[in-house]
Amino acid sequence: MALSAYWLRDNCPCAECRDPRNGQKLFQITDLPGDLAIVAQREGEGVLEVHWSDGHRSAYPAEWPDERAEGSEGPEGDGRTEQGKRLWTAADFAGGLPEADWATYLADSGERAAVLAAVQRSGFALLRDVPAVERQVLEVARSFGYVRETNYGELFDVRVEPDPNNLAFTSAAIAPHTDNPYRDPVPTLQLLHCLRNDSTGGDSGLVDGFRAAAVLREEAPEDFAVLTRTPVPFVFRDRTTELRAERPLIEVDAAGRIREVRFNNRSIGTLRLPAEQLDAFYAAYRRFARITLRPELRLTFRLGPGDCLIFDNVRLLHARTAFEQDGHRHLQGCYADLDSLASSLAVLNRRAGALDALEELFEGEGLGEYLGEAVTMAEHMLQAGALAEAAGASDHLVAASLLHDVGHFDGSGLKLMQGRDNRHSHTGADWLARWFGPEVTEPVRLHVAAKRYLCAVEPSYRAGLSEASEYTLQVQGGPMEADEAAAFTAHPGAEDAVAVRRWDDQAKVAGAPTPAFAHFRPLLERLMS
Amino acid sequence: MALSAYWLRDNCPCAECRDPRNGQKLFQITDLPGDLAIVAQREGEGVLEVHWSDGHRSAYPAEWPDERAEGSEGPEGDGRTEQGKRLWTAADFAGGLPEADWATYLADSGERAAVLAAVQRSGFALLRDVPAVERQVLEVARSFGYVRETNYGELFDVRVEPDPNNLAFTSAAIAPHTDNPYRDPVPTLQLLHCLRNDSTGGDSGLVDGFRAAAVLREEAPEDFAVLTRTPVPFVFRDRTTELRAERPLIEVDAAGRIREVRFNNRSIGTLRLPAEQLDAFYAAYRRFARITLRPELRLTFRLGPGDCLIFDNVRLLHARTAFEQDGHRHLQGCYADLDSLASSLAVLNRRAGALDALEELFEGEGLGEYLGEAVTMAEHMLQAGALAEAAGASDHLVAASLLHDVGHFDGSGLKLMQGRDNRHSHTGADWLARWFGPEVTEPVRLHVAAKRYLCAVEPSYRAGLSEASEYTLQVQGGPMEADEAAAFTAHPGAEDAVAVRRWDDQAKVAGAPTPAFAHFRPLLERLMS
Repeated sequence: MALSAYWLRDNCPCAECRDPRNGQKLFQITDLPGDLAIVAQREGEGVLEVHWSDGHRSAYPAEWPDERAEGSEGPEGDGRTEQGKRLWTAADFAGGLPEADWATYLADSGERAAVLAAVQRSGFALLRDVPAVERQVLEVARSFGYVRETNYGELFDVRVEPDPNNLAFTSAAIAPHTDNPYRDPVPTLQLLHCLRNDSTGGDSGLVDGFRAAAVLREEAPEDFAVLTRTPVPFVFRDRTTELRAERPLIEVDAAGRIREVRFNNRSIGTLRLPAEQLDAFYAAYRRFARITLRPELRLTFRLGPGDCLIFDNVRLLHARTAFEQDGHRHLQGCYADLDSLASSLAVLNRRAGALDALEELFEGEGLGEYLGEAVTMAEHMLQAGALAEAAGASDHLVAASLLHDVGHFDGSGLKLMQGRDNRHSHTGADWLARWFGPEVTEPVRLHVAAKRYLCAVEPSYRAGLSEASEYTLQVQGGPMEADEAAAFTAHPGAEDAVAVRRWDDQAKVAGAPTPAFAHFRPLLERLMS
Repeated sequence: MALSAYWLRDNCPCAECRDPRNGQKLFQITDLPGDLAIVAQREGEGVLEVHWSDGHRSAYPAEWPDERAEGSEGPEGDGRTEQGKRLWTAADFAGGLPEADWATYLADSGERAAVLAAVQRSGFALLRDVPAVERQVLEVARSFGYVRETNYGELFDVRVEPDPNNLAFTSAAIAPHTDNPYRDPVPTLQLLHCLRNDSTGGDSGLVDGFRAAAVLREEAPEDFAVLTRTPVPFVFRDRTTELRAERPLIEVDAAGRIREVRFNNRSIGTLRLPAEQLDAFYAAYRRFARITLRPELRLTFRLGPGDCLIFDNVRLLHARTAFEQDGHRHLQGCYADLDSLASSLAVLNRRAGALDALEELFEGEGLGEYLGEAVTMAEHMLQAGALAEAAGASDHLVAASLLHDVGHFDGSGLKLMQGRDNRHSHTGADWLARWFGPEVTEPVRLHVAAKRYLCAVEPSYRAGLSEASEYTLQVQGGPMEADEAAAFTAHPGAEDAVAVRRWDDQAKVAGAPTPAFAHFRPLLERLMS
């Protein structure tokens, strides 16, 4: 395969080119010479080495270019187009809505991920039993992202108001629409939290705007095209506000995939186009509007006190039926954004993936020999974790003890680019830093130094080392000199590292029973968040 | 001119079709029949009357369709494309930067509008003498909009950090870039407030990304096209964040106008395209990147304590030179959005326009006869305002007295659609409600009722009415009945209306000297905000 030179170089994974903690590049594209070329490339032992005309050398996992070729299986873009989403009709939820109980959502990261994934995939999810108290909707938004303040405030009350500046604040029916199309950037998420709903009527409705747009594309492709290419002026003005945005009703990406829908006749201003284009636009718009009203597209349900609906405001249209003023209907709403929700979901999935990978290592590679000791690597680490736990150590010390030798795994699961040297404490700590704070990673980083330290300050300690450990002590640099030992104790994680080291040394008992990795998983999950 | 029927009807200005307070439509496009047609249209007295096939009748100002025809002079879209902006090079600011003093900005709405207009037009403005205290940057953002919270927090500190998760938090030079391209919606505004800057180096730079893109379009149109149609994956990940957005480096609107620029090599992820497309993208990207580095495009200046830079983050690239750690450099930054800034500017301009229109009326039409009294309309209203002021009345009563008869103006300046009936108190109050709160509008609305009330409860009051006022009393319904009078006093604005009424009645002294309208302008401006 012919490789694009600048593309390959722009993706060089070395620590000089890229910050390993956040993947941010440390060079500018203009730092590369204008005649950059590959001088030599060599593949072996799973690594593709590239020598560049400017003297730089890069090493990629051998499979890297193929994995990233066009059309290859990769992350689904930014998750914002119709691709990978479930475009639905009401019947798809005959078995129930995507919902979760608030307490479970908070306590269980799997449940939390499922709720966020439902918003990403189906455009909405419903949280039940959210305390029906004022301002609670802000807490829901903050559980996965950031509140977007607007001219309606940090939050807004949806109830009948004496002098409403918006139809929402009356008891009238509201046809399916998206909110705030006159804002750019438009808020991409909306939350509606029901505090009270004992009026007759006032049921909620949702329509999948992506599905409606896809139906339009299927039934009238030319109308679909008109709506994607006609900028529509949306306007809102009251005494303190004058918002204006010109955006198409249906926005597609460069590949023609549906990406955003804005739909709200209340705020469409005056288009300025030749009469025939106006006719074409209004014909297409009216057809699309009629599709959004098809009963089979409209999911209807009733929000009760404590229900909080989270939905995609650049995809789903929301509606409500009229209600009588024989009771009270009071929702509190706020806006937030999809990018932070997607980030929270990705981090939850990444953490679950990391725990899965660790579990696999403990149950696979970890069953291998541990540097000449009488226990396997997995047994050794599980014993260390169990010893810390039995000693009543705090969570971060249990985790550090359990994971202190993770740098010994050869990296098939961890994909450590730099995992092949013998600085296993640093390798392990660096990998763990993707998931855990310094209270976990620093004792891991220092656990080898702690051994050299203890050998220097505690003669009886060295006498108790196992034969293998005595051997590696020499490789590791031998006992510390006095000044080295003083510097070590000054390090913030030193005391914890010494504690981990003692459990490490004791965790070499052949056949000692230990809990399985799964036992430690909830503890690790807590430390990750 | 042939009129597009649905377009015309969708813009019907009648109160049944459109909420006069916020311009929001009260019908759905699907409420209109499928065979809607114009049955008859008639033009006369400046009004275009349209009779519709469904029986509805609309009345538009006669010039309305022409004013809104394609290509007509209208508001410049949403102010977000290159159209109407000043695309600049550094030399354009040889005479100085667009800047204002913080205290003046706060006190003077004209200065505030100038600052916001500079951000809209040139992409940035500089506020001087903003108190150099922590969190003050949030107050600057709130002076025109809303703070956008991100993974960096509500605000972020730009200074050297021991364990930076971003190059910004080091002392290294940073090449011109936009922030947060991996967010969608990306924050469209950034603020940087300097608290301290006594290090050697650390100067600021700005590049107009729209100008750079326009240069690329001119010098290499095909490269420009490549950058507008290639979605680029931007990525940021750290322990608690995983943000991803796929957007082109240069975004254009349907008419091909430059609308947004995202530029940040640090966070460009791996594009997945065929090798020849990758080569084309990287060639175009490198050409664009080189343009952004041309010295003539880069405006360089130094932020000192108290300086706060506000800039368009989807247009301007910002940069800084490296600095030595021989002193301290500490900025606080936050994000906000262009839509709210544009709204604040539009409202300021609208208010200034309303005051200009009022001033013109007082100095033009207002010089005409006042219903058979010995004073002109303008003299009458200025006298009423002056009497209220002399009596030490609060601002809102001075304003209500000054403006109580504004509904008498026939509307050439006010463009009151419904300004031709004889309910001048309501007409005036409704128009004023666009600018003023109920404390001003309700006394105006009730000043005719107050006369009828006073005639009912205070026999001596009626005896003192002028001849013309006694005549109009009959037209207005005569003195109130007892139950009407009781209902009147229950109204929240009744007492104020009675006070206004008394100044109204006294304000008919031929030749009495009064201040000019301009005297009242600062008071009106205060009440508007």
